[in-house]
Amino acid sequence: MTAAHPALLTDHYELTMIGAALRDGTADRQCVFEVFARRLPTGRRYGVVAGTGRLVELLRDFRFDKAEVEFLRRTGVVDGQTADWLAGYRFGGDIDGYAEGELFFPGSPILTVSGTFAEAVMLETLVLSVLNHDCAVAAAAARMVTAARGRSVIEMGSRRAHEEAAVAAARAAYLAGFAATSNLAAGRRYGIPTTGTAAHAFTLLHDDERSAFASQVATHGKGTTLLVDTYDISQGIRNAIEVAGTDLRAIRIDSGDLSVLAQQSRELLDSLGATETKIILSGDLDEYAIAALAAEPVDSYGVGTSVVTGSGAPTARLIYKLVEVEGRPVVKRSENKATVGGRKVAVRRHKPTGTATEEVVVPQGVPDHRSGDRLLQRSYVIGGAATEQPALVESREHLRQCLISIPWEGLKLSDGDPAIPVTMIPTSAEGGQR
Amino acid sequence: MTAAHPALLTDHYELTMIGAALRDGTADRQCVFEVFARRLPTGRRYGVVAGTGRLVELLRDFRFDKAEVEFLRRTGVVDGQTADWLAGYRFGGDIDGYAEGELFFPGSPILTVSGTFAEAVMLETLVLSVLNHDCAVAAAAARMVTAARGRSVIEMGSRRAHEEAAVAAARAAYLAGFAATSNLAAGRRYGIPTTGTAAHAFTLLHDDERSAFASQVATHGKGTTLLVDTYDISQGIRNAIEVAGTDLRAIRIDSGDLSVLAQQSRELLDSLGATETKIILSGDLDEYAIAALAAEPVDSYGVGTSVVTGSGAPTARLIYKLVEVEGRPVVKRSENKATVGGRKVAVRRHKPTGTATEEVVVPQGVPDHRSGDRLLQRSYVIGGAATEQPALVESREHLRQCLISIPWEGLKLSDGDPAIPVTMIPTSAEGGQR
Repeated sequence: MTAAHPALLTDHYELTMIGAALRDGTADRQCVFEVFARRLPTGRRYGVVAGTGRLVELLRDFRFDKAEVEFLRRTGVVDGQTADWLAGYRFGGDIDGYAEGELFFPGSPILTVSGTFAEAVMLETLVLSVLNHDCAVAAAAARMVTAARGRSVIEMGSRRAHEEAAVAAARAAYLAGFAATSNLAAGRRYGIPTTGTAAHAFTLLHDDERSAFASQVATHGKGTTLLVDTYDISQGIRNAIEVAGTDLRAIRIDSGDLSVLAQQSRELLDSLGATETKIILSGDLDEYAIAALAAEPVDSYGVGTSVVTGSGAPTARLIYKLVEVEGRPVVKRSENKATVGGRKVAVRRHKPTGTATEEVVVPQGVPDHRSGDRLLQRSYVIGGAATEQPALVESREHLRQCLISIPWEGLKLSDGDPAIPVTMIPTSAEGGQR
Repeated sequence: MTAAHPALLTDHYELTMIGAALRDGTADRQCVFEVFARRLPTGRRYGVVAGTGRLVELLRDFRFDKAEVEFLRRTGVVDGQTADWLAGYRFGGDIDGYAEGELFFPGSPILTVSGTFAEAVMLETLVLSVLNHDCAVAAAAARMVTAARGRSVIEMGSRRAHEEAAVAAARAAYLAGFAATSNLAAGRRYGIPTTGTAAHAFTLLHDDERSAFASQVATHGKGTTLLVDTYDISQGIRNAIEVAGTDLRAIRIDSGDLSVLAQQSRELLDSLGATETKIILSGDLDEYAIAALAAEPVDSYGVGTSVVTGSGAPTARLIYKLVEVEGRPVVKRSENKATVGGRKVAVRRHKPTGTATEEVVVPQGVPDHRSGDRLLQRSYVIGGAATEQPALVESREHLRQCLISIPWEGLKLSDGDPAIPVTMIPTSAEGGQR
């Protein structure tokens, strides 16, 4: 076991602030913190909320045990008063936020944490770590699923990511519509279908390719996938069909010019009578490469590096900002004017056809209700107690519906504006330095 | 606690291959797998080995418990024979590799895993997850340390990375010469100095900026760092010095045009008599931004997103390849010609002045010894038992020495070729399909 208690997955300065606030009496001030992105990664049309379910699970165990408190005291991170407070720490506030699988845009308040300053500021790092990672992967994965146009996409990027990030990435990719993952821990922890057959090493291990294929088929049956590009691909396909017969389920090609190879492989398979044998492509695929293969006879895509690293945007740029103290909106003066203090409510507006038109974010109240409005926030934690979470498959379906609802331009892979605008309605009284 | 046993941090296909190999009798063939990068991220001059110490720790716990085997059996990932084998699995082979903190280049065999096919192929995903992540962070961090020219650099990117990846990133950054981290778990797990003082939220929480500063100084003393850019920076600096006096240790600026602000802030601090008060800059810094601040009066840099995401290269592109079976070199036919089969030995050659000139990689033997040669591989695991690991501070010093040893062009941030060439000396007898 390698994980710390989640409580130490925290930045030093949170405890420094708590120490000073406990001493000066401000620690108990009621505060509201909000998680949002000022902007999406360059050119992206939408963000995807992911990780909140994982976060709620981590928060269940967020407490400081004796050894951790002793470590913090010994290293001078906290004083005695703060150490005592940490020993009794349990988050007792409320957390609201967008559902997993919901889309978000610049300014969308995707998570709202309410409680005393001390209990709420404590969660900053863990909240952001989970959401910044998982949202980044989910957004990239959703674009790949769109690009695949109904063909299945398999996540196989564990080896390109930190070993625990890999498990979370598999979850986020599945949420975004991937069909399966290679990661066994994700299978066990989240019930995600896992898949995998063989690497080039398996072929190299054997005396020749046919022996390797024969062994694989003998153990795993004709429903397996044979990797045909260890030596010569055409010969590999011939060997595969000779060994497994024409009812072999699939071949996989992991290198080379995939467009050309897909065509040639389909023709060869058909000429050998293996008209039902599927073609799975992998090897440095991203959403653009997948889109470029749309016209080729491909049945499935395996994606690694690009999905687990967010396809150029490995973090979602979410921030955790104090927006309200004792009912008073606050805002950092040096912010751009779009930043609005105060707790907010968000709704998404839709045409009668169901197409989303805009998101409206209103501080301290609910916008006037119109037909087609959908409230975007739900309750995750009430008084420190977690509410029931939707199943991952429900969140997956929710995202699928959300992506259907946005204007079609919003699904384009090319750089552009957010799919719908976010209208921030400011309060009249903004807080600031007094 | 959130981590699975490391054994499930594995791809499905490793177990599928093991299942077939157990059945056909090839599982016990003696194999050598090698970890290397075909190329560095575009324009990079060197890679940095990081994570091996963490990997060896994970391997100590790499076994399948009863519930995990039952999960794999129930979901059909493995058959009964494989399940029994998994229940008794312990890696019993050898692992050699470059020391942590060593530089690497395209083709450098940074890790060599020897054992039976089944026991060695099992480790592919975990080995690559750990090394691909940690090496990516360490390489980016080393460039930032170089760019900082002796000024201290602090890692504060936990919130921009998966919560467990953040801890590993803090370790890799420290290895690369960062002075400290914000991450408390990294402090506890690895003994890395942690640091942190306050966020904008702490100022916003208080009735005004002076109250916040006074509270922070009352609790943490004048050795603290005051964050002066919540409202107006000049006024913030005046407030800081009025409250803390001219022996305040440092101010931090987290936004705005940092070059201009550093100059103005230094002048203002000096005019107020706070000539010893240091200036710490943070806010979307990367190696290029740090380099651009070289002429400004800055004392320390705080780096977040760019270091934990590898500054544009979030994965080190390392691969795990079977290179030898029962003493016979093997190589995937479709590889480019630079790929060489067989177990290899690597040495780095140096001029009498100590400057590195090339890396020589020789299969199955040691190159002729010359004065200035340094053998690059050490033993990590012998017969399944871990050897003693160097302390993290020793690895840190090793990297510092390595960076001194490469030709000066190798330290340039601009795109270019690897700092030194790697000469691969092929064997006469390459394996292949028979």
